[in-house]
Amino acid sequence: MKATWRVMLAICAGLLVLPQAHAQTPAAPPSGGDTALIEDIVIGSRILAEFGVLDGFGHVSARDPKNPNHFLMSRSLAPALVSADDIMEFDLDGNAIDPRGRSLFLERFIHSEIYKARPDVMSVVHTHSPGVIPFGVSQVPLRAMFHNAAFLAAGTPVWDIRKDFGETDMLVRDPARGKSLAQVLGDKPVVLMRGHGDVAVGPSVKMAVFRAYYTDVDARLQSQAVALGGEVNYLTPAEGAKADAINAAVIDRIWNLWKMRVAATLAK
Amino acid sequence: MKATWRVMLAICAGLLVLPQAHAQTPAAPPSGGDTALIEDIVIGSRILAEFGVLDGFGHVSARDPKNPNHFLMSRSLAPALVSADDIMEFDLDGNAIDPRGRSLFLERFIHSEIYKARPDVMSVVHTHSPGVIPFGVSQVPLRAMFHNAAFLAAGTPVWDIRKDFGETDMLVRDPARGKSLAQVLGDKPVVLMRGHGDVAVGPSVKMAVFRAYYTDVDARLQSQAVALGGEVNYLTPAEGAKADAINAAVIDRIWNLWKMRVAATLAK
Amino acid sequence: MKATWRVMLAICAGLLVLPQAHAQTPAAPPSGGDTALIEDIVIGSRILAEFGVLDGFGHVSARDPKNPNHFLMSRSLAPALVSADDIMEFDLDGNAIDPRGRSLFLERFIHSEIYKARPDVMSVVHTHSPGVIPFGVSQVPLRAMFHNAAFLAAGTPVWDIRKDFGETDMLVRDPARGKSLAQVLGDKPVVLMRGHGDVAVGPSVKMAVFRAYYTDVDARLQSQAVALGGEVNYLTPAEGAKADAINAAVIDRIWNLWKMRVAATLAK
Amino acid sequence: MKATWRVMLAICAGLLVLPQAHAQTPAAPPSGGDTALIEDIVIGSRILAEFGVLDGFGHVSARDPKNPNHFLMSRSLAPALVSADDIMEFDLDGNAIDPRGRSLFLERFIHSEIYKARPDVMSVVHTHSPGVIPFGVSQVPLRAMFHNAAFLAAGTPVWDIRKDFGETDMLVRDPARGKSLAQVLGDKPVVLMRGHGDVAVGPSVKMAVFRAYYTDVDARLQSQAVALGGEVNYLTPAEGAKADAINAAVIDRIWNLWKMRVAATLAK
Repeated sequence: MKATWRVMLAICAGLLVLPQAHAQTPAAPPSGGDTALIEDIVIGSRILAEFGVLDGFGHVSARDPKNPNHFLMSRSLAPALVSADDIMEFDLDGNAIDPRGRSLFLERFIHSEIYKARPDVMSVVHTHSPGVIPFGVSQVPLRAMFHNAAFLAAGTPVWDIRKDFGETDMLVRDPARGKSLAQVLGDKPVVLMRGHGDVAVGPSVKMAVFRAYYTDVDARLQSQAVALGGEVNYLTPAEGAKADAINAAVIDRIWNLWKMRVAATLAK
Repeated sequence: MKATWRVMLAICAGLLVLPQAHAQTPAAPPSGGDTALIEDIVIGSRILAEFGVLDGFGHVSARDPKNPNHFLMSRSLAPALVSADDIMEFDLDGNAIDPRGRSLFLERFIHSEIYKARPDVMSVVHTHSPGVIPFGVSQVPLRAMFHNAAFLAAGTPVWDIRKDFGETDMLVRDPARGKSLAQVLGDKPVVLMRGHGDVAVGPSVKMAVFRAYYTDVDARLQSQAVALGGEVNYLTPAEGAKADAINAAVIDRIWNLWKMRVAATLAK
Repeated sequence: MKATWRVMLAICAGLLVLPQAHAQTPAAPPSGGDTALIEDIVIGSRILAEFGVLDGFGHVSARDPKNPNHFLMSRSLAPALVSADDIMEFDLDGNAIDPRGRSLFLERFIHSEIYKARPDVMSVVHTHSPGVIPFGVSQVPLRAMFHNAAFLAAGTPVWDIRKDFGETDMLVRDPARGKSLAQVLGDKPVVLMRGHGDVAVGPSVKMAVFRAYYTDVDARLQSQAVALGGEVNYLTPAEGAKADAINAAVIDRIWNLWKMRVAATLAK
Repeated sequence: MKATWRVMLAICAGLLVLPQAHAQTPAAPPSGGDTALIEDIVIGSRILAEFGVLDGFGHVSARDPKNPNHFLMSRSLAPALVSADDIMEFDLDGNAIDPRGRSLFLERFIHSEIYKARPDVMSVVHTHSPGVIPFGVSQVPLRAMFHNAAFLAAGTPVWDIRKDFGETDMLVRDPARGKSLAQVLGDKPVVLMRGHGDVAVGPSVKMAVFRAYYTDVDARLQSQAVALGGEVNYLTPAEGAKADAINAAVIDRIWNLWKMRVAATLAK
């Protein structure tokens, strides 16, 4: 629903109206910037907003393949409004390379510390995914219900900020909290955050977005299966590993569909 | 969904069509009126309608900062249709300052009595929020599931009109019922009303609307967590207090997104 | 959502496209026809389709106030597509007064027999309301969760076609089945039909549509309340009776909102 | 929701924009092709995408009535994007008759093996229907809740790929897996696939699509009924057989409604 009216504005009026994003003074692209990669971040942010995995909060980032010690991420902005001009470059301590006085996401340390701990990770997505939040505060672990969410069969750890940091404002607002979160994530693709949301990671923006999306879908399906009562026949870890390889192979089929849905909101 | 077709009407036809609202003879703004504040009431009403927190019923009000013994609120009208011209001024006994023969909300005493009892409250929102109604008739208290709903960690009292007034029509249709409700609200940000809905209050229209919205989201999340079975690890009151301070700091990020969604329905 | 694209077609292209409905040769209005009443049937059908209370099946009828032994109802057509030209007149045995070779709803006997048994009823709505179907096959009775559904506090009987007719095709396809259903409805505003849907009746099309809508809402809310576990504090019959009188008084507020949503689909 | 913005693009801009589908070089229609049948496959794919029964994955096929040993199915493409040009012809071993270097669905053997085993089946639909997946991993069998899903009263077997093939990637990627699935389907209209989705079959594309749709609706309704607790009064097999005959008789009423919703996305 979310992108619909913006599409309409653009098409019917013959021009695009995205006031908040475009009110920004256009800036030079991030020094290590890569146009296709920035587009993936923008499209991925808008896809997750379109489908309600993100609301006004949450963020998508990508490691810079030319400089693996830097990553790209929007200035502080609702993901549905992120445009290429909003993407900034950060180092692995969460410092903006060219801050230009812009507001930054308080929780950019989720990204910086995971990139530091996980050289294989090329993209990080943080959401307050409504399907998933119940599993972050429950004793019932999130598990893989079907092959599109096969990556969950590897196990889904829950990070409780209170364990290391006591009673906080719940935010990953410094490197220490980010490091603690990255440790609980371990080598997994998804970590749940108690009373907050989750983080999905992947070898590309497409895969991290796909995982954030299907983690939400899977959680809703598991809730329904648990409510039916009795044993639930989840994917085994071996099934999950095999099925996840297929997801990587067919991802363009759904990514292209998603992209068409949100692309019109970006036309100049 | 709700605003979509109105946006389309406006854009495609090149003019805005809001017949019911505009059929009203335009009137002078409320004597103590403040354009930005009135806009917040209008935008807030339409946001909550857009997201299904309000349907054809419910209302958003604001205390007049220049005259704290008055408050601003629409004439009786579905919140999705409220425009600036519909906003009227009331005293703290619920009397319209300039009634002009308009229909008034029967339940304006929810607002008047809360403004009387709570000098800190600058805005009041009353909804029949579908996520929340089940908690108003359940023995399970509504609690804070995640940081965006941190304000609920302070506790969510339930007002049962039957306790003081016996078997009624359920409506807060006089000052005595409003006073009873305000007493149960106490110093909290949200009170549930058995068999009816809820009231969220805040230091600004934005915050009251934010709270009404996330109260609904939180209730749906808690329903899912409870249905999973076992203990649920809610936010503690100390976590809630800290996290709610952050919500106040980042509210413009989501308010601006919401405002863009509904702003086109208001263009002249 | 359902009406949205049709609104757009009409507005953007500058003409209305409702091929199926308009392919019909326009006919004289029903002999006892009343333009405003026919409009209410059309609007009511489209409202319930817009909100998912009706899908491709179900129907809205009205008793002819000038000839109480006749009622008005569409030819067999999906409710989202019903236009004034589709409305036909029937007697209380379910015979079309001027059949013109049109397909008729198999289940028109739901309407004819209820009008026969209940002189107070001026409108009948039959739906496969998704919120309600679970209560038609459950041992848990549907009850009034909040004041907008106050009419349910009078009790909601369930009609099981198997009791009188054995194993059937589940349809009310003759006067005997309609009479059996009307007997179980008794003097209530709503009756559930096991494995099928429900029927809501009222003193006007607006009230019958309002009741069909809020019966669905209430059922969804009750499902959530029951799932929380423990006692649920429903409206009492006395509260229900008082609150329902208010619904009748404020119905135009929501009806006018709903009508605006679907009116554009009807423009010529 | 899904088709809405594409409708708008087409209407407002006066031309149709379906880049991915139209980027394909138009090809001769399948040798045994039948224009009306191909249209049904296209419309059926888009209907199921429109209503969320299909997301980016899943497929609709039809047996060629002129050559019952061949069937028609899209090249590998998200169902919301399928156009007539994408439809290809296959033999019952899953070989494309005229491959033209196109990507094929890995799981076309679901279709080929069911056509081989079931001469009565003229159409096959495979979905990851979100309502149904929980029943594929649960011990609670999916049953018929109401007359529109009467075909489920015949029983809904669950195929667990692990039983015959051990820990796999979950996909029906070869004839042996398809044959095993077809054996579990037996003479039923629907088979669930553990950790994956379901398959609905029928004597026509309309009926297979109708069944895929109402299988999803029914599953959601049953989940709600089970959650209420206590016995659920399902349709009996005899009721199901009788009611399903009616569905076949009235299917055009809902098919025509659905078709109108998606037809504009196909205009040239």
